[in-house]
Amino acid sequence: MSAPEVAPQNPPIPKQSELRRCISLAICVALGAVLWFLPVPAGVDPRGWQVMAVFVATILSFILRPLPMGTMVLVGVIILVLTNTFADPATAPKKASKESLAYALSAFGNTTVWLVVAAFLISGVVIATGLGKRIALLLISALGKTPLGLAYGIGAAELVLGPFVPSNTARGGGILAPIVDSLCRTLVGDAERRRRNDVSAYLIQVGAHANLITAAMFLTGMAANGLVSAAAQDVAGVEFGWGMWAKGAIVPGLAGLILLPVFLKFLLKPTGVDVAAARAKAGSDLKAMGPMSRNEWIMLGVFVLMLGLWTTAKFHHIHTAVVALLGVVICLVTGAQKWNDMAKNYGAWDAMVWLGGLIMMAGALKDFGVIDWFANNAKGWVTGFTPFYAAILLALIYFLSMYAFSMLTGHITAMVAAFIGVAIGVDAPALLIIPLLAYFSNLCGSLTHYSTGPVVIYFGLGYVEAPRWLRTGAFVGLFHIIVWLGIGLPWWKLLGWW
Amino acid sequence: MSAPEVAPQNPPIPKQSELRRCISLAICVALGAVLWFLPVPAGVDPRGWQVMAVFVATILSFILRPLPMGTMVLVGVIILVLTNTFADPATAPKKASKESLAYALSAFGNTTVWLVVAAFLISGVVIATGLGKRIALLLISALGKTPLGLAYGIGAAELVLGPFVPSNTARGGGILAPIVDSLCRTLVGDAERRRRNDVSAYLIQVGAHANLITAAMFLTGMAANGLVSAAAQDVAGVEFGWGMWAKGAIVPGLAGLILLPVFLKFLLKPTGVDVAAARAKAGSDLKAMGPMSRNEWIMLGVFVLMLGLWTTAKFHHIHTAVVALLGVVICLVTGAQKWNDMAKNYGAWDAMVWLGGLIMMAGALKDFGVIDWFANNAKGWVTGFTPFYAAILLALIYFLSMYAFSMLTGHITAMVAAFIGVAIGVDAPALLIIPLLAYFSNLCGSLTHYSTGPVVIYFGLGYVEAPRWLRTGAFVGLFHIIVWLGIGLPWWKLLGWW
Repeated sequence: MSAPEVAPQNPPIPKQSELRRCISLAICVALGAVLWFLPVPAGVDPRGWQVMAVFVATILSFILRPLPMGTMVLVGVIILVLTNTFADPATAPKKASKESLAYALSAFGNTTVWLVVAAFLISGVVIATGLGKRIALLLISALGKTPLGLAYGIGAAELVLGPFVPSNTARGGGILAPIVDSLCRTLVGDAERRRRNDVSAYLIQVGAHANLITAAMFLTGMAANGLVSAAAQDVAGVEFGWGMWAKGAIVPGLAGLILLPVFLKFLLKPTGVDVAAARAKAGSDLKAMGPMSRNEWIMLGVFVLMLGLWTTAKFHHIHTAVVALLGVVICLVTGAQKWNDMAKNYGAWDAMVWLGGLIMMAGALKDFGVIDWFANNAKGWVTGFTPFYAAILLALIYFLSMYAFSMLTGHITAMVAAFIGVAIGVDAPALLIIPLLAYFSNLCGSLTHYSTGPVVIYFGLGYVEAPRWLRTGAFVGLFHIIVWLGIGLPWWKLLGWW
Repeated sequence: MSAPEVAPQNPPIPKQSELRRCISLAICVALGAVLWFLPVPAGVDPRGWQVMAVFVATILSFILRPLPMGTMVLVGVIILVLTNTFADPATAPKKASKESLAYALSAFGNTTVWLVVAAFLISGVVIATGLGKRIALLLISALGKTPLGLAYGIGAAELVLGPFVPSNTARGGGILAPIVDSLCRTLVGDAERRRRNDVSAYLIQVGAHANLITAAMFLTGMAANGLVSAAAQDVAGVEFGWGMWAKGAIVPGLAGLILLPVFLKFLLKPTGVDVAAARAKAGSDLKAMGPMSRNEWIMLGVFVLMLGLWTTAKFHHIHTAVVALLGVVICLVTGAQKWNDMAKNYGAWDAMVWLGGLIMMAGALKDFGVIDWFANNAKGWVTGFTPFYAAILLALIYFLSMYAFSMLTGHITAMVAAFIGVAIGVDAPALLIIPLLAYFSNLCGSLTHYSTGPVVIYFGLGYVEAPRWLRTGAFVGLFHIIVWLGIGLPWWKLLGWW
C-alpha cells in the first residue's frame, strides 16, 4: 500500500517561510487570548466562552495554516484540558485535571469518528489491493466511447467508491486523478495541453466536480462530513446518520452526476477529439492489471456486504459504524490486509485525532451554551423571512462563504453548528436546514481551485489555469444550487422531512 | 524515523503454515462458542458470561497466535458489539446496536490508554531525533570501564528511557539491543561468540533483564501496564496511576538495577575480558553522532519538563496523561517532529486498539459481575492462609504462571483482574496485592526466552542458547522475588500501603 495516497484529507500546507509561520501562529494565539479575556456575555457559561476562544483561534489556524490541522487541534485540546475548562468548577482540584481530560478524550470513542476511521482503514485496502483502480478503469473503458462517455465513466467510478473512501482526496486525488491524467496524456500532446477548449480540461474538471458531488452524497464520502452529523445531533437533536444522509442525497446527487458532464460540455465546449485512444489506454491498463487477485475478490465481497447491510439497516438495525468495523475485521481475518499494514494507514489516525478533537470542541460549545447564545443573537440576520426562506438564505450564505476558506473542513467547523442553531432558532424545519448544509458543505468546494485536496490535485495537473477554473467553478456552484434546491427540496418534501 | 523500531510491543508472530493458523483460529472460536452456550452460573449477568467467553477465546488466541493481537482484539470486540452484548436488554432494538458500539468504543477515550498512546508518540521522537541512542552511548561510555561498568551503563540507559518509551520492545530491542550487540561484536570475534562464559553473554542477559526491571518500574515502561492500572481501578477501586506506580517501584526497582549486574556476574562468571575496546567503540559511535541537534535539545527539554511535572503532581494536580499530551504538543509545535511523521508511528495506534479493547472487555467483566463471581469461587484456593500470605501466594502463582504464556500482555490480560479480585475477596490489602501484581507482571518475563519482544530480540542475537537462558532466567526470577518481597514489602509498609 502506498500510504500517502490514503492519508491527506485536505490540501497540503503551502510552502511558507519559518518567519511567516511564526507570525501566523502568533496571530492565532493572540486572537484566542483576546477572546478568552473578553467579558463573558450573560447566559453563557464562562467555560463555554473559553472553548469558543480556543475554537475560533483553531479555525483561524486552518485559514493561516502555520501547522497541520492535526497539530492545531491537539494544541487547542491541550490548552482547554490544561486550564481544566472541561471540568466542573465544583470538582476538587485534585480530580479536575482527569475530569477535564476524560471529557476531551471522550470524542475518541465517538461512533461517527469510528465510522470515518473504519472507512479510512477500508479505503486503504481498496487502494492496496488495486480494486479501486480496477473499478475506475473498468467503468471508464466500458463507458468511454465519447468525451461525454469518458466523463460518465469518471462519475460512475466516483459513485461506486464514494461510500467506501472517506478521504475524498484519496478517492479523487489518489485513485482517479492519476487515471484521468493518463487518459488526457493519451489524448493530447504536451504542447496542446493548455489549449483553451480541449477535452483534457473538460475531463479534469469533470473529475474534480464529480468528486465533490460524491463527497456530498455519503456521510463516508468526505472525512469532515462527520462534523455535520455531530452538529445535527448536538444542536438539533436529529440523528442524521449514514442512511438518512444517503437517502436525502440519492435523487439530487444522481441528477447532479448525470447532468454535470452535459452541463460542463455545454460550458466548456471541448473541441471534438476522437477519444478512442483514451478508451484503448484504459482498456490496456486494465488488461495489464491481470485477473482479479484473491484479495480483490475479498474486498469486493466486503463492498457488497457493507452496501447490503447499510441499505437494509431498517430490518436488522446494525449501526453503520458497526458494519464498517465488521468490514475491517473481515479484511483482517481473511488476510486481505495484515494488521500492521492497516495500522500504518495513518490517514485513519490523523482523521481520528482532528475529527474527534473538533467534534468534542463543537459539542462543548453546545453543552456550555455558546451555540444557543449565538443563535439567539444571530436571529436578526434573517428577520423578515419565513422560516423556509430563512433556511434557504442561510444555506446560500453558507455556500458562498466558502470563497473565504481554503479547506472544506475549516469551513464546516467554523459555521455548520452555528448555522443550524440560527435556523432552528427561527423555527426552520431541522430536516430542511440540516440536509441543505450537509450537502452544500461539499458542493461549495466547486467554487475555487483551493477548496479541498482533490481539487488542488486536479488543478495542480496544470490543464486549467486559475481564472478559468474560478469562472467555471462559479457556474458549477450555480448548477449545484439549482439542482439541489430544484430537485432536492421536493425530494425531501416527499420524504416528509419538512 | 524508522517506524518498526517503535512499533512492536510483543514478540512477532512465529512463522506458521496457513493450515496451522486456520486450525488455531478454529480452536479459539470453538472454545469461545462452547463457553458462550454453557449455562450461566447464578449471580452472573448473562451478558457478562458472553463477554467472558469472548475474552477467554481472545486470550487463547494470544497463546496460539493465529493472527496479531490487534486483529484478535478487534474480532472479539466486533463479535460482542454485533451481538448487542453491551446494550441494556431493555433498549429498543433500533438503538441497541449504537448503544453496544458506544460502550465498546468508550475505552478509546480512556485516560490510561491515551497516556500510553502519548508516550508511544513521544518515544517515536526520542528514537527519530537520536536522543535515545545518544543517552545510551553516553552512559555506556561513561560507566563502561569494566564489564560491570558496561552493565551499569546499560541499566542506567534503561532507567533514563524507561518512563518515556512505553514499548519495552522499542526501548530494549530497538534502542539498546543494537548497541549492546555492537559492543559484544567489538569484544569477541564471531568464532568465540558462543563460548560459555564470555562477557557477551553477560551483557546480553543484563540488557534483557534490566529492560524488564524498568518495564516494571513505570506505568509507561511497558504498554500493557495500563491493563493493571485499569484492573486496580475496576476491581479494587484504587487509582494506581503513574505517580503511585513509580513511588512503589523506586526503592526495590533501583535496588534490583544495582544488584542485577553483580548477581549476574556471580552467576555467569564472565571470563575476564578487557572491555576497553567496547568502551572506545561506544565513545567513537557517540562522537560520530556529532553535536546535539536542535530537535534533540527540544526533546531533552520535553524529557525534563515531563519528569518534572510527573514528579510534582501533588502540587499542581496535572494528570499524568495531560503531561504526556503536553509533551506531544510541544514536540509538534516546535517542529521536533512533524505531525505526519508522528501519525505514521503506528505502534501508538496499534497499542490504542488492543489496549483499549482489552481494557474495555476487562471492565465489562467487572461491570457484569464475572470478576466478583470468579473471586468468590476462587477464594477456596487460598483458604487457611492469612490475607497477607494469601496475597503473597497469589503473587507467586501469578509470577510462575508466566511459564505458560508467550507474551507478557497475554499473561496480564488473562490473570490480573481475577487475581486482584480473589485477593480482595479474602481481605488482602488492595495496596499489597496491586503493587505485587503490577511489578511481577513485568519481572516474571525473566523466566523464559520467549516472554516479550526485547527478550526475544536479545535472545535472538544468538549469544546465549535456550537451556542456558532458561536456567539463568529461573535464578533471575528468584532474585526478583527476593528483592521485591525483601525490599518492596517493607517499603510499601513504610508508605502506609498495607
